[in-house]
Amino acid sequence: MKNTLTLCLLLLAGILNAQTIQSPSKEISVAFKLTAEGKLSYSVTYKNKQVVNESLLGIALKDIEALDTGFTITNTENKSVNESWKPVLGEQSTIQNKYNQATFSLVQKDTGRKLDIVFKVYDEGVAFRYEFPKQEKLNYFIISDEKTEFNLTGNHKVFWIPGDYDSQEYVYNETKLSEIDNDKLNLNNGIAVKSIGGRYVVQSPLMMKSADNLYLNIFEAAVVNYPVMHLDVNVANYKMKSHLVPNAIGDKAYLQTPVVSPWRTIMVSDDARDIVSSKMILNLNEPSKIDDTSWIKPMKYVGVWWEMHVGISTWDLSGTQDASQKSVGKKPHGATTENTKRYIDFAAKHGFDGVLVEGWNIGWEDWFGNWKEEVFDFTTPYPDFNIQEISDYAKSKNVKMIMHHETSGSVANYERRLDRAYNVMKKYGYPAVKTGYVGKIIPRGEFHDGQAMVNHFNYVPQRAAEYKVMVNSHESSRPTGVSRTWPNYIAAEAARGNEFNGWSVGNPPVHETILPFTRLLGGPMDYTPGVFEIKMSHYDPNKKEQVHTTLAKQLALYITMYSPLQMASDLPQNYEKYSDAFQFIKDVALDWDESKYLEAEPGDYLTIARKAKGTENWFVGAITDENPRNTTISLDFLTPGKKYKATIYQDGKTAHWEKNPINYEIKTIEVTSKSKLKLNLAAGGGTAISIFPAK
Amino acid sequence: MKNTLTLCLLLLAGILNAQTIQSPSKEISVAFKLTAEGKLSYSVTYKNKQVVNESLLGIALKDIEALDTGFTITNTENKSVNESWKPVLGEQSTIQNKYNQATFSLVQKDTGRKLDIVFKVYDEGVAFRYEFPKQEKLNYFIISDEKTEFNLTGNHKVFWIPGDYDSQEYVYNETKLSEIDNDKLNLNNGIAVKSIGGRYVVQSPLMMKSADNLYLNIFEAAVVNYPVMHLDVNVANYKMKSHLVPNAIGDKAYLQTPVVSPWRTIMVSDDARDIVSSKMILNLNEPSKIDDTSWIKPMKYVGVWWEMHVGISTWDLSGTQDASQKSVGKKPHGATTENTKRYIDFAAKHGFDGVLVEGWNIGWEDWFGNWKEEVFDFTTPYPDFNIQEISDYAKSKNVKMIMHHETSGSVANYERRLDRAYNVMKKYGYPAVKTGYVGKIIPRGEFHDGQAMVNHFNYVPQRAAEYKVMVNSHESSRPTGVSRTWPNYIAAEAARGNEFNGWSVGNPPVHETILPFTRLLGGPMDYTPGVFEIKMSHYDPNKKEQVHTTLAKQLALYITMYSPLQMASDLPQNYEKYSDAFQFIKDVALDWDESKYLEAEPGDYLTIARKAKGTENWFVGAITDENPRNTTISLDFLTPGKKYKATIYQDGKTAHWEKNPINYEIKTIEVTSKSKLKLNLAAGGGTAISIFPAK
Repeated sequence: MKNTLTLCLLLLAGILNAQTIQSPSKEISVAFKLTAEGKLSYSVTYKNKQVVNESLLGIALKDIEALDTGFTITNTENKSVNESWKPVLGEQSTIQNKYNQATFSLVQKDTGRKLDIVFKVYDEGVAFRYEFPKQEKLNYFIISDEKTEFNLTGNHKVFWIPGDYDSQEYVYNETKLSEIDNDKLNLNNGIAVKSIGGRYVVQSPLMMKSADNLYLNIFEAAVVNYPVMHLDVNVANYKMKSHLVPNAIGDKAYLQTPVVSPWRTIMVSDDARDIVSSKMILNLNEPSKIDDTSWIKPMKYVGVWWEMHVGISTWDLSGTQDASQKSVGKKPHGATTENTKRYIDFAAKHGFDGVLVEGWNIGWEDWFGNWKEEVFDFTTPYPDFNIQEISDYAKSKNVKMIMHHETSGSVANYERRLDRAYNVMKKYGYPAVKTGYVGKIIPRGEFHDGQAMVNHFNYVPQRAAEYKVMVNSHESSRPTGVSRTWPNYIAAEAARGNEFNGWSVGNPPVHETILPFTRLLGGPMDYTPGVFEIKMSHYDPNKKEQVHTTLAKQLALYITMYSPLQMASDLPQNYEKYSDAFQFIKDVALDWDESKYLEAEPGDYLTIARKAKGTENWFVGAITDENPRNTTISLDFLTPGKKYKATIYQDGKTAHWEKNPINYEIKTIEVTSKSKLKLNLAAGGGTAISIFPAK
Repeated sequence: MKNTLTLCLLLLAGILNAQTIQSPSKEISVAFKLTAEGKLSYSVTYKNKQVVNESLLGIALKDIEALDTGFTITNTENKSVNESWKPVLGEQSTIQNKYNQATFSLVQKDTGRKLDIVFKVYDEGVAFRYEFPKQEKLNYFIISDEKTEFNLTGNHKVFWIPGDYDSQEYVYNETKLSEIDNDKLNLNNGIAVKSIGGRYVVQSPLMMKSADNLYLNIFEAAVVNYPVMHLDVNVANYKMKSHLVPNAIGDKAYLQTPVVSPWRTIMVSDDARDIVSSKMILNLNEPSKIDDTSWIKPMKYVGVWWEMHVGISTWDLSGTQDASQKSVGKKPHGATTENTKRYIDFAAKHGFDGVLVEGWNIGWEDWFGNWKEEVFDFTTPYPDFNIQEISDYAKSKNVKMIMHHETSGSVANYERRLDRAYNVMKKYGYPAVKTGYVGKIIPRGEFHDGQAMVNHFNYVPQRAAEYKVMVNSHESSRPTGVSRTWPNYIAAEAARGNEFNGWSVGNPPVHETILPFTRLLGGPMDYTPGVFEIKMSHYDPNKKEQVHTTLAKQLALYITMYSPLQMASDLPQNYEKYSDAFQFIKDVALDWDESKYLEAEPGDYLTIARKAKGTENWFVGAITDENPRNTTISLDFLTPGKKYKATIYQDGKTAHWEKNPINYEIKTIEVTSKSKLKLNLAAGGGTAISIFPAK
């Protein structure tokens, strides 16, 4: 009888506590409520359509009761925020942060433990997180599982990659939710270390499209001191559950109150442009922790790098390690003083900011694949790399050197040498470092995406900031807006980059039309576009590998793949060979006042126009997937009444990513804000346009 | 038929290959042979008595075939070595390294893999190790188990502590081998973190005594890049097997050829003095890797330390953390500028080299027991500890400051801050650091005694050497002679120290009569003797804790517990109160030309005479267990014909460790090399003697 009464009261409380939070536009609504048992649940509607069915929230804790049932609401707070902030570098000079917020303060009856659930509802989506207030009954605790559900309403189309604890460098699969199945993947894909978490586990950002043409995206923001969240998909009923990456002994996160989880985000719109242009993820991160950001600058760079990928030279002094992952016979070492000077000369001549050199330091003879702890010391150059001479030479040419710290996954080794490594950079004036994590992680048993490594990837930019060093990480966990907090974390790889085209099955033409809807939501990607010699047979007639785009699309990527750090990845001689096309790379800006997403369809096409910061110069990038595409864009973003000179870099008449990729045309025309341009994109093609005020 | 033939050939080969290696004295013999199946076996005799029955050798590897059977011998090399070397600091100025060696080169038929077994036979024992030569068929490999057997011949008496992966701070159990049982231990013993590896697992050094009065000791030397070896005991048949400490995922060691295992050692003698005085463990380590050792000096020190242990002051500024491991109400912070200056004054007045200060840096409010990663930064003093002022003051008084780096087990945090921590020491002129590892290890899942932590404990002195810093580690894995290779690794705790007497059941009177036969074989211990106020009721009438020795025995420990780093652990006011006894601590040397082990019986008594380096001064220490002891020692080690003044610090007539511990007498007499001294040691007592040439 008493139990029945309790149940009734709980039920009543549940109904009474059902609360709705709307987006400023009122198009998105979240309903939060307690179930009869005091479980936490939410659902989401968009324009009055259900997009997330009732889904439970909860956290399982190690050794103590789960925070997933028996809750009552003790307080609710609502607020509306509309503010703006200026990123140090970005797609736009000002970012609006506008949302409605509700905080539900909960107490778990049996344990007396307190938990807050906070929702922020933006015009383009919903974010919520768990907040664990400081309290007597919960101080240090260990998360053994997060039980956040995302119960979808239908068998959506989904762009997915497997939920791998160690890598995101996969080609996207485009299937129905019901067709997700990691067992059917071809894993001969060039990825060095794979640890797939289960047959139906996928990664976020997870981009979807419903049968009624709604675009949905599930992701997370501000992953700090917490593992990466993958998603367990129930392919029968389209329900998903958070799947946190474990540590060496199976725990998920070690926390101390007061502490918060990352934000779990669900974006939804009937216009894909709302998602791809969203700044919600950045908004959900903390403001910059660096006061003086004057030293954080965009960088366009070349590097002793692609030549190793195409098999011309090697990382190691002994001349056996190019990117082919097999013995290659004796080849020249790439990172010589002489070769580096050649790149410095090229950078200086064409106005590049920096030169990256990989393979400069001892250790490359045996760096890969053996879970070796003491690989690199990050301080000792090979004898043929005269770091003092190179540094002096670069300075004399007004070119910055970019340091390379490959850790081979031995994070323990890197951390114990951090200060020494950065002191070398300081000594020789390197303002930026590319870090690399190719290999199984040491401390052994940890994964790239676990809490300890997330902390490492956040810690390195923090330490680097003390040396005024910018960080570009490769093989890190994927960023979730951290560049707002640490703006010197200027770019990351954390997805399948252009390099895979050099020596593996590569990236299909559709790849770059998906990344902006997924990986790039978390922050800039060092995709390393700009490969002009598309086919590797150029270097070796036996090679079948190739970049899966036209040359013109390589140019357009400088616009569609936002990053304040952009590489011109091809060899100097190739740029000199196609110097007319190269002009676009020389001209293109890296930091922007405004970005206009003109057209967007995930997995099909993307067209963006951006205004270079502090100028009247615009740049347009348009890309397509494996299908040719004709479209017309309006230049109504230009200042009315003003005349501009537009140089259009487009696919040639017979261009085709596979059959004729280097076929391109360049024309210059006068345009105004009333102009409309017809763009003809080849299969796997693109168009890049520079628009300068007419003189 | 073919198999039978093979078997016969193998059997024949096995018999033919049986080989014997003798000690230079010919008293110890090792027989090494292959079994019929090509397994590796050895046995040991001493004076023609079997002391180790036939025991197998072998290594199990992860994912590939074990190296434990199917071997043939391809080569045997024998050599005799007789050399000597001079330790930087030590019990004697010259150490003889004399042994006969045999190297058996083996090949495993099925895999083609090569393995060498090397035996070194000394007059006091046998050492052997596995050597994995550089070879095509074995490069990187993972040890999943070591299958080294030590099959004993009887139910010996054994001094054992449980095979804990995280601590050696146990009281010794003295039982028969058949009575070993970790399930019967009382674990309410003050040890913070315990991870006992199994019911019948014990630690080495394992000291034993057979029914026919042979002393046996099983240990290891030169544990480098390898986990600590514990021993799995079969209590029914007295067979033991190596039990390596695992890492977070159960692996034991990650190695690359060429590489060697630590030495496995079996000491045996009918005179216990041969074991306790043996330098075999040191001899089995590599020579010093430090060229200029002029900065490595013995140190006698006092410290802001014992006052936290007895509950007078606290480590944390907020005043709640003394050693009682519970809330203590508000007490004064120990590490204040003023209090530190008091210790500096005391050190200067009495000729001490250094002052240790614990609790000087921020973080102590929440440092313990929560597996917290970011506890200390090792660089930021509490506001009431003016490090510049203290450092200047110490310099003006010619006293050295000793740094304290408590890591609370968060090795990841310490390693990433190593350079910053040591730069602070350099800035303020600290020549030595005491490190601490109280707590569960981070990287999480690792143990104090696993390969990764062994590497850390070896790495810290290596890095410290670059700053000319000496290291005294507490809660590290126990040393195995590493101080030969890194002589700046001046001392370690790594056993149950005197501190346990302050706030736990403490150390029984027998404790210090065992440690020299176990822990100290691996290197100097920072036992922190010299407690004069024996009973904690001195500080608080409610306290029942006490040091389990007489005051005189505390003095004798400066001789019986060899260390070039010795603390006078008690409070200045206590030394001033017993200033006559304190004179011995002021006088006693730390570095020696010679050491004479006059009497030794593990678990009963120990008497040592040592000659201070470069002088004619001798110091004698004699201790007993809970039983009183009368003995007569001859001073025939003194220079014949020379007169000396001996000051004898001995137990008073009614002295007793429990009933009357501070009862002592001091007398000064003239002695020569012909003198014999009657020593009367109380229950739990001791005698300390200083012998200076008469003027």
